[in-house]
Amino acid sequence: MALFVQKYGGASVADPACIQHVARRVWRTRQLGHDVVVVVSAMGDATDNLIALARQVNPNPDAREMDMLLATGEQMSVAILAMALHALGAKAVSMTGPQAGIFAEPVHRKAKITRVQPDRIVSALKAGHIVIVAGFQGLDPFEDIVTLGRGGSDMTAVALAWALQADRCQFYKDVTGVFTTDPRIVPEARQMDEISYDEMLELASMGAEVLQSRAVEFAKNHAVRLEVLSSFEDKPGTLVTAEVGTMENVVVRGVAADKEQAKVTILKVPDRPGIAAGIFQALAQANINVDMIVLNVSAQGQLADISFTVPATDLAQALKVVAVVVPEVSSAGMTHDQGIAKISIVGIGMRSHSGIAARMFSALADHGIDLHMISTSEIKISVVIPTAQADEAVRILHREFELDKPPTVVVDAPGGKTQVASRDQGA
Amino acid sequence: MALFVQKYGGASVADPACIQHVARRVWRTRQLGHDVVVVVSAMGDATDNLIALARQVNPNPDAREMDMLLATGEQMSVAILAMALHALGAKAVSMTGPQAGIFAEPVHRKAKITRVQPDRIVSALKAGHIVIVAGFQGLDPFEDIVTLGRGGSDMTAVALAWALQADRCQFYKDVTGVFTTDPRIVPEARQMDEISYDEMLELASMGAEVLQSRAVEFAKNHAVRLEVLSSFEDKPGTLVTAEVGTMENVVVRGVAADKEQAKVTILKVPDRPGIAAGIFQALAQANINVDMIVLNVSAQGQLADISFTVPATDLAQALKVVAVVVPEVSSAGMTHDQGIAKISIVGIGMRSHSGIAARMFSALADHGIDLHMISTSEIKISVVIPTAQADEAVRILHREFELDKPPTVVVDAPGGKTQVASRDQGA
Repeated sequence: MALFVQKYGGASVADPACIQHVARRVWRTRQLGHDVVVVVSAMGDATDNLIALARQVNPNPDAREMDMLLATGEQMSVAILAMALHALGAKAVSMTGPQAGIFAEPVHRKAKITRVQPDRIVSALKAGHIVIVAGFQGLDPFEDIVTLGRGGSDMTAVALAWALQADRCQFYKDVTGVFTTDPRIVPEARQMDEISYDEMLELASMGAEVLQSRAVEFAKNHAVRLEVLSSFEDKPGTLVTAEVGTMENVVVRGVAADKEQAKVTILKVPDRPGIAAGIFQALAQANINVDMIVLNVSAQGQLADISFTVPATDLAQALKVVAVVVPEVSSAGMTHDQGIAKISIVGIGMRSHSGIAARMFSALADHGIDLHMISTSEIKISVVIPTAQADEAVRILHREFELDKPPTVVVDAPGGKTQVASRDQGA
Repeated sequence: MALFVQKYGGASVADPACIQHVARRVWRTRQLGHDVVVVVSAMGDATDNLIALARQVNPNPDAREMDMLLATGEQMSVAILAMALHALGAKAVSMTGPQAGIFAEPVHRKAKITRVQPDRIVSALKAGHIVIVAGFQGLDPFEDIVTLGRGGSDMTAVALAWALQADRCQFYKDVTGVFTTDPRIVPEARQMDEISYDEMLELASMGAEVLQSRAVEFAKNHAVRLEVLSSFEDKPGTLVTAEVGTMENVVVRGVAADKEQAKVTILKVPDRPGIAAGIFQALAQANINVDMIVLNVSAQGQLADISFTVPATDLAQALKVVAVVVPEVSSAGMTHDQGIAKISIVGIGMRSHSGIAARMFSALADHGIDLHMISTSEIKISVVIPTAQADEAVRILHREFELDKPPTVVVDAPGGKTQVASRDQGA
């Protein structure tokens, strides 16, 4: 008998029929003899509707009151799901975040969980209940309700899985798992059987966010086994686990595109210590999420351009901040570009395989795709290109790194002979 | 500087525009220098919508989960009202029932408040905030959310007014105050300046429920001054206060009709001790709210009919219960009548004035209205008549007791001479 934490997103609980479907799925797991803790988001558009309602009375609503308002979305979902489970004959009990023992810092709209005290959940499980917890919310030290920010329900699920020492934290999504790239762009995109936390993190930080980064980070640090699977289809999903040796043999795990980016360049910045720090501190203070940063100084003391990308929605605000900074750092001015996309390839195998970047760049060059920026991390290479070529670039790279084929795994056979085997049986 | 508790019902906060209107009204009171605690219900049809949503997944939803669900209605209202107040430049903070320190017994859907611990409200008031409290909800000893049942928001307001020693508990309604009778039936119906708790209670227990009975009862026992006034019009309402001597001079304060009644008669019941108790215990166990009971035994040991009225919606259930009891008490059978209405006149002046009942009966008899049942209390006389004659009876009695005219008050002048004065100046 195992303990599963199952998380269902807003799309999975969009309406009463969806919730009844989720109830049947939860009930099936329970009937196999497992303990189940369910974390749910607000129903479908509920959160957006609440935000719209707030804006009707106040264009700039107070963060504390927004949390008070938004928390009702998840509270509704948990109650309705409990009722749907009762209708199936299941024992189930719903809990708000505070009731479930989710404590968080006093930061409205984007609090971090500080402590999980799941006594009430444990008692309810012992009494044979399925426990349904409102995601996305917690109690701060002032006994105020705080929400955990975008994707916060993922964080609730992982934190609970950790605190309860659950066997697995399962994320039910409107996809069947994690794919090598967006199947809408590349029909041959393949679902992965497994992926490492680090690869998942790099994918999560790109456009195709399947799991919230903070949640994956936490899972990695606390060794919580994650699984991404479909809430609609009944098939195995993608396991997100600690890295195992054979994973390195997969050079590129996936390709991702983020078309919601804009690029800002500050021209001819003098190369003095602290200049870059000053610029990005100003942006951070304005809560602007800077993604890629490229600075290339050819020789000490010379002038160089600094470029960075921000979410397209933050561009106007970023330009305002930079306009203040430009004269302060004696820069020559600034330019910006909205028509850009970031294309990334990710794989922990890059660490042990060389020449991947060169292979990526030349595949793109062969098709006449111009690179505006390049940035690399240990397991990711990202390039910025014109948005118009984004889909084409994804297709080129998916083909180049043969992601449509099951990865081949090098197995060190006991006799010392090396065998090559396909890991995905009949996938 | 006074402290007011203001309660706004669902109709007053039906949509964002209504909430903005309420915000302006609350803000005006605050700007006069008063402290304000606001209690709000769920927005318009929110509660009904939530109940309908629940029934879509479970025809008979669990009471605990219904409370979890329904509590979101008021939580939404308080947040939105706080935002609307912020938009006006006011300092305001919303609180759930539990945050406001409303503790209740662990009875879902109809809990009673057991304790009010308003420390958080007091601190917020001291900090200059308008405090907005979610009505209808509290926290039970198991830290579960419970709702207070129908009209529970009225109870929240009165309990808070008491705990905070507020100067007045104001109920904003879609009427401008308490009327001598329903103005839709009698256009000459007059709004009262004041009414005693007892008279209000008798009126509340009849069809025209303006304030919830439990709330009035509590206010009476704890001397909380109540006021009923309009949330839409800006004029004085009706004060509900402890009885003062001069009130006795008003013989009949108001006329009320309840057309949602049905009458059940158990025929020829033997007059043995405990028989009536057995019948009404059985009805109480089935949660049927019996209103009037009439039993008339002509001589010891004889057979007599027992009649009682119940809400029309409970008739089927009541007949089922009585059908079981009839053979047990060796009764001759039962009859029932659905086409009946209860007409009542109320006034604490009845205590000191005789002949009121006779005057009521003959006024009705003069117009050919037949009385099926009569029941009297210290300050109320009720008769059961055919529903078809209900409106006519109300008009007859309103005229008979001159309720369209301002009450005259007998003032004992210092010199010992008695003056008669109209209390309502130009009303």
